[in-house]
Amino acid sequence: MAPVTFGSRPSPTPRPMGHEAVGVVEGVGSDVRTLKVGDVVVMPFAYSDGTCEFCRQGLHTSCLHGGFFGNADVGGAQAEAVRVPQADGTLFVLPVGKDDALMPSLITLSDVMGTGHHAAVTAGVGPGKTVAVVGDGAVGLCGVIAAKRLGAEQIIIMGRHADRIALAQEFGATDVVSERGEAAGERVRELTGGFGVHCVLECVGLDQSVETAVGIARPGGAVGRVGVPQDETMPASQKAFFDNVTVGGGPAPARAYIEELLPDILEGKIEPGRVFDRVVPLDGAPDGYRAMDQREAIKVLIEF
Amino acid sequence: MAPVTFGSRPSPTPRPMGHEAVGVVEGVGSDVRTLKVGDVVVMPFAYSDGTCEFCRQGLHTSCLHGGFFGNADVGGAQAEAVRVPQADGTLFVLPVGKDDALMPSLITLSDVMGTGHHAAVTAGVGPGKTVAVVGDGAVGLCGVIAAKRLGAEQIIIMGRHADRIALAQEFGATDVVSERGEAAGERVRELTGGFGVHCVLECVGLDQSVETAVGIARPGGAVGRVGVPQDETMPASQKAFFDNVTVGGGPAPARAYIEELLPDILEGKIEPGRVFDRVVPLDGAPDGYRAMDQREAIKVLIEF
Repeated sequence: MAPVTFGSRPSPTPRPMGHEAVGVVEGVGSDVRTLKVGDVVVMPFAYSDGTCEFCRQGLHTSCLHGGFFGNADVGGAQAEAVRVPQADGTLFVLPVGKDDALMPSLITLSDVMGTGHHAAVTAGVGPGKTVAVVGDGAVGLCGVIAAKRLGAEQIIIMGRHADRIALAQEFGATDVVSERGEAAGERVRELTGGFGVHCVLECVGLDQSVETAVGIARPGGAVGRVGVPQDETMPASQKAFFDNVTVGGGPAPARAYIEELLPDILEGKIEPGRVFDRVVPLDGAPDGYRAMDQREAIKVLIEF
Repeated sequence: MAPVTFGSRPSPTPRPMGHEAVGVVEGVGSDVRTLKVGDVVVMPFAYSDGTCEFCRQGLHTSCLHGGFFGNADVGGAQAEAVRVPQADGTLFVLPVGKDDALMPSLITLSDVMGTGHHAAVTAGVGPGKTVAVVGDGAVGLCGVIAAKRLGAEQIIIMGRHADRIALAQEFGATDVVSERGEAAGERVRELTGGFGVHCVLECVGLDQSVETAVGIARPGGAVGRVGVPQDETMPASQKAFFDNVTVGGGPAPARAYIEELLPDILEGKIEPGRVFDRVVPLDGAPDGYRAMDQREAIKVLIEF
């Protein structure tokens, strides 16, 4: 089972895409110590050894022996099978059967739930904080879950798609801002006593969204970026500086967060799997991409 | 007594510059409650009420009723006298006489020592951390003091002026990197096991220095910016993102740090006043600027 991955660039050679997966172990290499055939596992979007200096500090996406799925060297997960390097460090054995009803939520531990959580953590979300989530895609929606889970007092979802907004509100968003640019900033300030929010989860990565994110942070606030930045320079550098707004974040160490997030999924406290609103077979992946691109679907699950 | 301020822009009308001062209270307004004539006080570079939401959280440079010295509305401190708005919130009464030998160090609480400390705090300096300081001016040198004071294990000063480097080493710098650009990055990685430093104090504000600062941070590291950014966009945004490097900092809430830093000055544990290597009378200010501009002096004290 693997969700469709969004945003790949043209490749000179054919290769499987996809970096999120839950599945059953079919074989293990001779150096693998902790996994056995038949284990039900979740695969974070980066592989990592789990033992290096960066893994030990919880930054598995900077693993000294790690890398990413779906490139020329390591195939992606939208395939009948996927080879997982550094399997002991990378894979997490799930305490459920392969047909468990929680599978859609468990697969979000591969990426989107961990990424939304990373945005919240790096934006400093905690009890009593005011939060804005820029972007109403699957990651933004998981960011809402994460913000509520971490105790945010107010959660403003910034987006303009009715189905996504509705889900965000079910996940805990308290306010909706559909304006963009300066109008969005004005509306957020109206909702926050004139100051802006303590914490901004930037889940898009475009220049305009980053500018909005920095612009709606209150002095001393923080932006957690998880949208891959499309440009080499960051806008609103001076606004960030003069207001002492911290900009953090990056590729989420999804592996690091599984231990923390899994119990809440197993207990039904969070339901990130609800971001999947369409299921297709493996050969339905192209149509799944089309559906997401045209905003017919939030996120598509490939099941086989 | 007031140090020469660096970097003012042309003004349409004549006005006193300068935002750092120690002096004696000559008069108080009718609303002032905590100060009296004769008090020896230090004046942080921003005035602040000390009671608003942002002051209470220690971010006095975002005070709701605050502002800065040396502009069209509020005169600067390179003058026979200066009017201090929000005096109760702004001024800090020093427990010394006006001719105390510690005056050069005490005046750094106005700005450069507090600013170097802010860079260190926002870069996350603490025991065992590896630190680089970009910039060997007065603020960078105070950043070295701050990093050592906060327990850094390794402090790399990045600069190329022999007198400043020598002082940085006396303040606690353990290594010197005089290269620039990519060569600087290579040298820092050589000195840090190949990874870069945990904490970077950016004390310049130019595009190249910010790019260097982000470039030498290790994955998961942080940059504390206190050099006023000269450009609206920040370079190395993608490098910061992919390595999960946090960029924080801004105008230092110097007022917030006086209680913490003052005891160390009074006890002689830190000597930031050593950044002053020239003293001039008030009418010597222009020549003081010239001396700093030509790197004949690190920082000039105006005494009268």
